[in-house]
Amino acid sequence: MSGHVAVVGLGPGDPRYLTPEADAALAGAEALYGYGPYLDRVPPRVGQARYASDNREECARAATALGRAAQGERVAIVSGGDPGVFAMAAAVCEEIESGPESWRALDVTIVPGITAMLAVAARIGAPLGHDFCALSLSDNLKPWELIERRLDAAAGAGFVIALYNPVSRARPWQFGNALALLRRHLPPSTPMVFGHAVGRPDERVEVTTLDAADGKNADMATLVIVGSRETRVVARPGKSPLVYTPRATVEVNA
Amino acid sequence: MSGHVAVVGLGPGDPRYLTPEADAALAGAEALYGYGPYLDRVPPRVGQARYASDNREECARAATALGRAAQGERVAIVSGGDPGVFAMAAAVCEEIESGPESWRALDVTIVPGITAMLAVAARIGAPLGHDFCALSLSDNLKPWELIERRLDAAAGAGFVIALYNPVSRARPWQFGNALALLRRHLPPSTPMVFGHAVGRPDERVEVTTLDAADGKNADMATLVIVGSRETRVVARPGKSPLVYTPRATVEVNA
Repeated sequence: MSGHVAVVGLGPGDPRYLTPEADAALAGAEALYGYGPYLDRVPPRVGQARYASDNREECARAATALGRAAQGERVAIVSGGDPGVFAMAAAVCEEIESGPESWRALDVTIVPGITAMLAVAARIGAPLGHDFCALSLSDNLKPWELIERRLDAAAGAGFVIALYNPVSRARPWQFGNALALLRRHLPPSTPMVFGHAVGRPDERVEVTTLDAADGKNADMATLVIVGSRETRVVARPGKSPLVYTPRATVEVNA
Repeated sequence: MSGHVAVVGLGPGDPRYLTPEADAALAGAEALYGYGPYLDRVPPRVGQARYASDNREECARAATALGRAAQGERVAIVSGGDPGVFAMAAAVCEEIESGPESWRALDVTIVPGITAMLAVAARIGAPLGHDFCALSLSDNLKPWELIERRLDAAAGAGFVIALYNPVSRARPWQFGNALALLRRHLPPSTPMVFGHAVGRPDERVEVTTLDAADGKNADMATLVIVGSRETRVVARPGKSPLVYTPRATVEVNA
């Protein structure tokens, strides 16, 4: 019995983001588990099984993979971006804590990856160049009131804000409410970045301002960055602008 | 004249974290610029020049590299971790904004990397599995009062907090003050993770609690993660514990 679980971050999609560590973890697994579209990014290997599941089945997927590992199999659970950021690593830890004692004896390796906010930021400049936070707008797993409290705190204290999961079919109004709340803290000209499917063929990055931003700019594959009062936009002739947050802040109330 | 600037994230240190995109950007450069210890991580290539500078000279380094690119050279500026997180990408954007108009015409590529908080989190579980923020404790570029305000806001609203640059020789008391402030918001048992030189040969990861944490736990190569009220520690016989923050939060005042 030498079961092993790797939770592997694939990065934003294109193989150019896949670290050698992630590639080796995928190659060493007897079976892959994951959300179908993420599994589809991994080239098939002879003799390697793969089990696709839906994107709301994180706990069941983790439990199945852990159960197989406890029987001696080498399994890899794939995750888009980084597995530790709104992704599979926490689900695996939850299952280990609540599951059979034997699961705590398993070798578990978590392989980091390029998470969406880093990929989007790199595409457009350095909007996360100063203090920032990452917040999921999904109220499936926490009360909306808590999300509002965190948006208030983050915008009020001058953090740049990366919004994961801004919109889904089941959550149509939340992003618009978040924009309305942010407008109470930040000037209309605050830069915003909408990064859609960054690192994939249908990539689209849009720079706008808080007053011009609209719920329609975002979908399930969008990562949104809301600047702070310090964030700047540098126009470039014939090129997309650079959006960045300077390293220095002089004002205490920035 | 086809100058090009790549700002390249090396990740935490070991080549297993270097993405293929970063490797290709390094291979395609005629000259590398960077802080000496980061340059030392890049294997030498025949015909490729390299210019080391000190770690407080980000702007001068960026300006030199941009000047060379404006003369037609292909340059790469290397950065530890991710260049967009408390690193070189913002310095490059600052210099482009304030420098000669010709610098705005340069092709600039920013290549993301695994930033320290993702590497440390992966080593220990999934402490960043829920909403979190990244905050530099250095008051070289912002007033200490602003750092305190942000710590208050982040801890008060239930964000997990990743602290970059907790300590340096010139900043001996700041981390201790930050701990004292955090103790006003969070229970003594709040999990903390000290990740020292993660991804390098002298890596050391320590799990402790907010009441037991001490300024001596951190140095210049340490990334500190402060849990939230939700963060959990899962003991494992014969193995290091798993530290994770569950995906779900039920309490509005968490």
